[in-house]
Amino acid sequence: MSIVHVTRRAHFNAAHRLHNPEQSDEWNRAVFGKCNNPNWHGHNYELEVTVSGEPSPETGYVIDLAELKTIMNRQVIDICDHANLNLDVPFMQGILPSTENFAVAIWHRLVDALPSGKLTSIRLFETPRNYVEYRGE
Amino acid sequence: MSIVHVTRRAHFNAAHRLHNPEQSDEWNRAVFGKCNNPNWHGHNYELEVTVSGEPSPETGYVIDLAELKTIMNRQVIDICDHANLNLDVPFMQGILPSTENFAVAIWHRLVDALPSGKLTSIRLFETPRNYVEYRGE
Amino acid sequence: MSIVHVTRRAHFNAAHRLHNPEQSDEWNRAVFGKCNNPNWHGHNYELEVTVSGEPSPETGYVIDLAELKTIMNRQVIDICDHANLNLDVPFMQGILPSTENFAVAIWHRLVDALPSGKLTSIRLFETPRNYVEYRGE
Amino acid sequence: MSIVHVTRRAHFNAAHRLHNPEQSDEWNRAVFGKCNNPNWHGHNYELEVTVSGEPSPETGYVIDLAELKTIMNRQVIDICDHANLNLDVPFMQGILPSTENFAVAIWHRLVDALPSGKLTSIRLFETPRNYVEYRGE
Amino acid sequence: MSIVHVTRRAHFNAAHRLHNPEQSDEWNRAVFGKCNNPNWHGHNYELEVTVSGEPSPETGYVIDLAELKTIMNRQVIDICDHANLNLDVPFMQGILPSTENFAVAIWHRLVDALPSGKLTSIRLFETPRNYVEYRGE
Amino acid sequence: MSIVHVTRRAHFNAAHRLHNPEQSDEWNRAVFGKCNNPNWHGHNYELEVTVSGEPSPETGYVIDLAELKTIMNRQVIDICDHANLNLDVPFMQGILPSTENFAVAIWHRLVDALPSGKLTSIRLFETPRNYVEYRGE
Repeated sequence: MSIVHVTRRAHFNAAHRLHNPEQSDEWNRAVFGKCNNPNWHGHNYELEVTVSGEPSPETGYVIDLAELKTIMNRQVIDICDHANLNLDVPFMQGILPSTENFAVAIWHRLVDALPSGKLTSIRLFETPRNYVEYRGE
Repeated sequence: MSIVHVTRRAHFNAAHRLHNPEQSDEWNRAVFGKCNNPNWHGHNYELEVTVSGEPSPETGYVIDLAELKTIMNRQVIDICDHANLNLDVPFMQGILPSTENFAVAIWHRLVDALPSGKLTSIRLFETPRNYVEYRGE
Repeated sequence: MSIVHVTRRAHFNAAHRLHNPEQSDEWNRAVFGKCNNPNWHGHNYELEVTVSGEPSPETGYVIDLAELKTIMNRQVIDICDHANLNLDVPFMQGILPSTENFAVAIWHRLVDALPSGKLTSIRLFETPRNYVEYRGE
Repeated sequence: MSIVHVTRRAHFNAAHRLHNPEQSDEWNRAVFGKCNNPNWHGHNYELEVTVSGEPSPETGYVIDLAELKTIMNRQVIDICDHANLNLDVPFMQGILPSTENFAVAIWHRLVDALPSGKLTSIRLFETPRNYVEYRGE
Repeated sequence: MSIVHVTRRAHFNAAHRLHNPEQSDEWNRAVFGKCNNPNWHGHNYELEVTVSGEPSPETGYVIDLAELKTIMNRQVIDICDHANLNLDVPFMQGILPSTENFAVAIWHRLVDALPSGKLTSIRLFETPRNYVEYRGE
Repeated sequence: MSIVHVTRRAHFNAAHRLHNPEQSDEWNRAVFGKCNNPNWHGHNYELEVTVSGEPSPETGYVIDLAELKTIMNRQVIDICDHANLNLDVPFMQGILPSTENFAVAIWHRLVDALPSGKLTSIRLFETPRNYVEYRGE
């Protein structure tokens, strides 16, 4: 028995703004700095999704990557690409779109769309120098 | 005599929207698709600036890269980073912020801030798969 | 007037073998070494296509990248991806599939499919450490 | 006491084909699509091998990377580079060469060639967007 | 409750030499080869620092990346950048500057400068093909 | 007739120091800053060498990359890798080792070792963000 971890990387770009509506504008400017710009800013996000399990004896696959790509597109990429995370993305409504919160939200978009127990990690790169990982813990 | 081409790469991120106000909303949606999203989208831009010339016999430099970095920051990065190209960037007012037009505008921001004849190329990556180059021609 | 150079990068993978049928097997083994393996080997190719021209005053585009992508897919990627360059690709029949010859062949696949005078460069990466460029000269 | 994880990356390229000989041609085409091409396709594989342990007080090394490189070359790279995984690689005979199965097979090629307990992870990139990890579990 | 892992990447370059002063010159040359060059050699190091915890409900941050950057600069980058690890870096005195030992030393520079329990991983790339990870175990 | 440009990338690491011995220590510190550190610093250099010409009808090659690799190793890499550019590299004696001067010196090491007229460009990356190009002009 061998547990193999399979990762697929995808790309999308989006606008967002870090702003906590329960706090004053002054607090938001002090805490979020340029990320609080009311006119938005944006990123090329890179998303890595890892699913884990035993390779099928028939196909050698933990998961068919074409199927994983379809699920990632339907659940995340098609909704977020060229969108405004604060205004356009239903699953981010009411959530402060930090990379941390966005990764957790992406996990919840994917975990039930994948076979039970398969999803083990989400890695989300906001820039080539900053990324977060969420493992459902 | 040796002409050497020196390139420095910098990073910034910004929001933008492709929209031609002299055309109808319908035309804009048809031509620009998702890039016309009224709620904006964004990118991590990578900017490469090339200056060319003979290395100084005293320093071995075509240009001091610390000086080039200062000029790039003052003329471009500090103004564009975490900004909205359509709303926040004075040198992009009235210009459709395609990567092509943005690169030409960056050239004009830099050419007079650098010693005469030095600037030879601007390369601007909008995503890892799309980039433009402008050589002042 | 400003001439801007726009590049789009695409990915495909393929098998190939370097073998000159007009020469002996011994000559081929001596000249091409492991690249002459009769059981084939393969690569993840990265293709960069550059088109040049003045940005349109209406769109800011030299070329609509969605259109360029469609042309690249139809003329090159859909034919070469997951294919054997020696056996499966009609436009490579009778051509020794070195990276050099492959890049020239890709140029000829694209030059007439693009608006006149637009295509200015093909760059083809066979590995992250080896690439060729062809500019139609 | 400090456990440090040391990773070395290596490159090779190979041809392969996904085909399960116990199933019909029709089944194989339906399941594997383009990856079932009877004329093969190929990849530039990137292999990361991680060994873990306490750094030696005398050398500061968990393992001498020159020694690790020699073992990786002898056990994997020299056999797989410019080869056909289905036809040329003895340790892949009878194994469907999915990235998953290939990574597990590479683990078994390396685990006994390295000091006991040292090997902790194999990561294998089939393309820049798809990779698998196997940790011997 | 969600534990998210946040990573920031930084860059610096330095000279070093692998040499164990308690051993003979002959031993050092045999063990360290070119890395023992008495005239030094150097690297562009890439450092990844991972901190883990629950995102704050107010900011969405596990840690403010600007604060993490300030701590990384003060504790590591400002001291090591353009420096000689053997001669110039106080926290490396008496330590053989292998990548393994350097990563462990960086951990100890950061663990007490960060909020308790936050630091979970140091990854240090000596070259694009060699890196180590230390998780405080 | 088709002129194709073939590029091979190689890696080495080295220590160096920017210091003009005809100037005062004060001048050197003011001009070169941290790069003047008397205890050296270092880099992972990436070198790209481009040779241009018509592909051979017999081999499809502008140049056999194995031959180019051998020449690059003999003329540059074996001499510079894990070396001190100021002290250990004969072809850099008396030359201020800026990236500019180093690239020009590498050109002169290669131009006569390659078939006449073949060498058309040297690109030298000192860091992922700074590189120079020299085309023999």
